[in-house]
Amino acid sequence: MPRASSVDRVAIVGLGLIGSSIARAIGERLPEVAVVGHDASAEVRKVANELGLCDTIADDPVAAVANADLVILAVPVGRMADAAVAIAPGLKPEAIISDVGSSKAGVAEALAKALPDHAVIPAHPVAGTENSGPAAGFSTLFEGRWCIVTPGAGASEDAVTAVTSFWQALGAKVETMDAAHHDMVLAVTSHLPHLIAYTIVGTASELEEVTESEVIKYSAGGFRDFTRIAASDPVMWRDVFLANKGAVLATLQRFNEDLTVLQQAIRRGDADKLEDWFTRTRAIRRSIIEQGQDDAAPDFGRKH
Amino acid sequence: MPRASSVDRVAIVGLGLIGSSIARAIGERLPEVAVVGHDASAEVRKVANELGLCDTIADDPVAAVANADLVILAVPVGRMADAAVAIAPGLKPEAIISDVGSSKAGVAEALAKALPDHAVIPAHPVAGTENSGPAAGFSTLFEGRWCIVTPGAGASEDAVTAVTSFWQALGAKVETMDAAHHDMVLAVTSHLPHLIAYTIVGTASELEEVTESEVIKYSAGGFRDFTRIAASDPVMWRDVFLANKGAVLATLQRFNEDLTVLQQAIRRGDADKLEDWFTRTRAIRRSIIEQGQDDAAPDFGRKH
Repeated sequence: MPRASSVDRVAIVGLGLIGSSIARAIGERLPEVAVVGHDASAEVRKVANELGLCDTIADDPVAAVANADLVILAVPVGRMADAAVAIAPGLKPEAIISDVGSSKAGVAEALAKALPDHAVIPAHPVAGTENSGPAAGFSTLFEGRWCIVTPGAGASEDAVTAVTSFWQALGAKVETMDAAHHDMVLAVTSHLPHLIAYTIVGTASELEEVTESEVIKYSAGGFRDFTRIAASDPVMWRDVFLANKGAVLATLQRFNEDLTVLQQAIRRGDADKLEDWFTRTRAIRRSIIEQGQDDAAPDFGRKH
Repeated sequence: MPRASSVDRVAIVGLGLIGSSIARAIGERLPEVAVVGHDASAEVRKVANELGLCDTIADDPVAAVANADLVILAVPVGRMADAAVAIAPGLKPEAIISDVGSSKAGVAEALAKALPDHAVIPAHPVAGTENSGPAAGFSTLFEGRWCIVTPGAGASEDAVTAVTSFWQALGAKVETMDAAHHDMVLAVTSHLPHLIAYTIVGTASELEEVTESEVIKYSAGGFRDFTRIAASDPVMWRDVFLANKGAVLATLQRFNEDLTVLQQAIRRGDADKLEDWFTRTRAIRRSIIEQGQDDAAPDFGRKH
């Protein structure tokens, strides 16, 4: 297992699903690394203490990052700038700052501005569940998942290596790319799917012709698959769409074009066009399963 | 367990995922009922024989339905009319004909026209997986799922009872409604979700800025959830959209309106609107889980 050898002390700011999973993963896979946690919410800190998530839970962000070699900001992307300002006075000069935000260009800019004298190495572990909060985390969340690191121009190689090794030590596979490309890739693979899921779940719950109780009752026909990601944290996702507006709107336009094409095919009764399209999409799922990014069992492996 | 007491012999025409699951469920839960299977494809009949799905596999549709008390057509909805015509000469007068089609008004009309002298009781088990073919079926597919029966005006009560008891005996819960309402309910809970999933999987695989291999690699961010139903049988789904065109296009229009509202909220940076919407959709998933229509485990219970 790779070691993040220059990192002896990690501070995690934000102890929700991702922050608490990082704490648990360090506890299990890097027991020699000291972990200090902090969350702006006193209630979350209390739960984190009860769960024993970290070696120490600090009430104060400045105290939390004291002597930390690596500080990970695990707050909604709209709060990254404030969180960076809050920790700044406590950082040692050689501390590396990273984050876990789902959009990167805006976050990178905000962090660089708030912490001009520190090595800022943004990262995004592409992993999660629909649950939120400190109790939702688990130590294996990152195993076999990708973590995308987006170092800016002129980033310290040692700092990039430290962040890369850290995520590898938690079980993730690491890829490096520039922030703008990350934001486009994630707009397609994550942000647009969430937007569509949120939309359709809202649509279905407000039709006059079909009651909400019917929607729930017959959801096994396909609808329920969309409800999982539409149950994700509302504040986190509000911020993601606002932070990655450009790429989200661009991919949404492509989606709308394609939907119009299929709508027209249905209206015109163009059977061949529909069958061709539906045949192509099958292959994608096969590849996702082959590459270990989803379960091969029918229904995602739901119990029957 | 309720018994379909007037049904001693069942013929299943079409041995794909649903037909083969019915055969398996009868074998397990109604061992005293004789099952004859037929499929238009010689290859499917061969596999069904090898799997021992039915007591008998008939090469000929007329022979398959001889002496059957209940005949279930489990073919794509576009093929229902032809299947009904093909079996007509072999039916005994008191045979009840049912089906498993995902749209009901058109199918009911086609079956009534093809079989004017028989009791036709359309039904739709709201269950399935993304896999197709005779080997994909399993005996517990219908357990705890709903089966919607849509008897026409003047349908024989005995025949409705027989079909209802049959599905209950296979573990399903049965609801009765009229065909037009069924088609609207299913447009929302099943057909629109499939259309959206097919669209987004197609969109994602054809962007210039993001390669297909990147889409697959980072699919755990949400995209992979859509790929399951977008891997469903292309011919079956082609037929569903063409057969339920009116209701699908009507619900699609609502979806498009809602998507435009969210698109505008993102463009304008309307944080409150986004957060409100995303908070409402959480409650729906909770209800689906409470009513036993989905798994409460994170990620649908996928392995971690």
